Amino acid sequence: MKLSVNKKILDSNDKAAQRNRQRFAELGLACINVVSSPGSGKTTLLARTVRDLAGRLRMGVIEGDIKTDTDARAIRAAGAPAVQIETEGACHLSARQVHAALDELPLGELDMVFIENVGNLVCPSAFDLGENRRVVVLSVPEGDDKPCKYPGTFAVADVIVINKIDLLEYIEFSLERVLADISKVNRGAKVFEVSARTGRGMEQWYEWLLSHTAKSNIRNQNAK
Amino acid sequence: MKLSVNKKILDSNDKAAQRNRQRFAELGLACINVVSSPGSGKTTLLARTVRDLAGRLRMGVIEGDIKTDTDARAIRAAGAPAVQIETEGACHLSARQVHAALDELPLGELDMVFIENVGNLVCPSAFDLGENRRVVVLSVPEGDDKPCKYPGTFAVADVIVINKIDLLEYIEFSLERVLADISKVNRGAKVFEVSARTGRGMEQWYEWLLSHTAKSNIRNQNAK
Repeated sequence: MKLSVNKKILDSNDKAAQRNRQRFAELGLACINVVSSPGSGKTTLLARTVRDLAGRLRMGVIEGDIKTDTDARAIRAAGAPAVQIETEGACHLSARQVHAALDELPLGELDMVFIENVGNLVCPSAFDLGENRRVVVLSVPEGDDKPCKYPGTFAVADVIVINKIDLLEYIEFSLERVLADISKVNRGAKVFEVSARTGRGMEQWYEWLLSHTAKSNIRNQNAK
Repeated sequence: MKLSVNKKILDSNDKAAQRNRQRFAELGLACINVVSSPGSGKTTLLARTVRDLAGRLRMGVIEGDIKTDTDARAIRAAGAPAVQIETEGACHLSARQVHAALDELPLGELDMVFIENVGNLVCPSAFDLGENRRVVVLSVPEGDDKPCKYPGTFAVADVIVINKIDLLEYIEFSLERVLADISKVNRGAKVFEVSARTGRGMEQWYEWLLSHTAKSNIRNQNAK
């Protein structure tokens, strides 16, 4: 996807994203767009989050995949409502697809909507879905060179989750290098080091989520 | 990238791919297009191949990345000529980019040209580069659900390399499931299980490569 070629598509997407953003604001919902390579553990991260924050945060999930509803089923098994979008070949979710999927979630009963984008470290970064925050997941087995190789994606993240840190002892991966490279492409991003499988490091991620609901934002603003 | 939208781009790419294919045929060169997710180990696979087949197969590599020339440097360090294409945001290599890069390789002295595509399990599958064979690499940490989730990419592979099998003991991954799913989306693909890092299983991959040079194809045809 060459960005210049698709300017029209991007403009039309931006308008739909704006409508989504407005809808989230009206409903007092926070929306988080989660982007990564295939197999970095986005679904495992979200399923564990749903389980561990049950009773503290009411979450719904929109799942994007080329094919299969495996991920939506995993989220439902964890206890949250989930809608699967099958893109049938498209390499990213569009704001319009998210708009349609929102109608299938019980929005009035939620605090937060996660969008798990199609596994792709390139294309989703160009498509605003109307989210409030963007999270990029990087898993240890992918290698410590990824922030430099995919700077566009890492540059627009509010949060970078380094996942599968339980594999650090089996894989050559320099956390130091990754953190230094992230700070070159994105000084402002918050970085969490976690293993969504074992649960290690998840508490900081949860604290961040709980402090980024629409209600907590309003509380923070009132406290100023 | 929605395929219908980009029909013009694809048609123009197909023409350039045809020119590349013709050039490979005239030079008696075999060309292999290697596609995978980010961090599946394409470069490690190619660097080890270059080292282990030195003296038996004369290889050159075209490296595709959004940014950095890390991979071309790794291939040169392994002993083969390499050209880096930085796509500056584009999510796949085009036949035209490959055409330009070919002029920077000593084609007359080679038996085989590898193209390492941009790390992306979606978009590269739609772009013919003029290659003779397409290889998809799937690494164990990405998970055993990928052939079903990305059927378009796996369907057009001549070879599927399952890499990082040295991590099988630390990760939940069913080889049986992957092989069954691959046979659903692509009955004809040859599958190799390897660890490019430790060298396990690489011999079968090497045999396949050696039997797919243009010269060996001609020998095979003559033998019929």
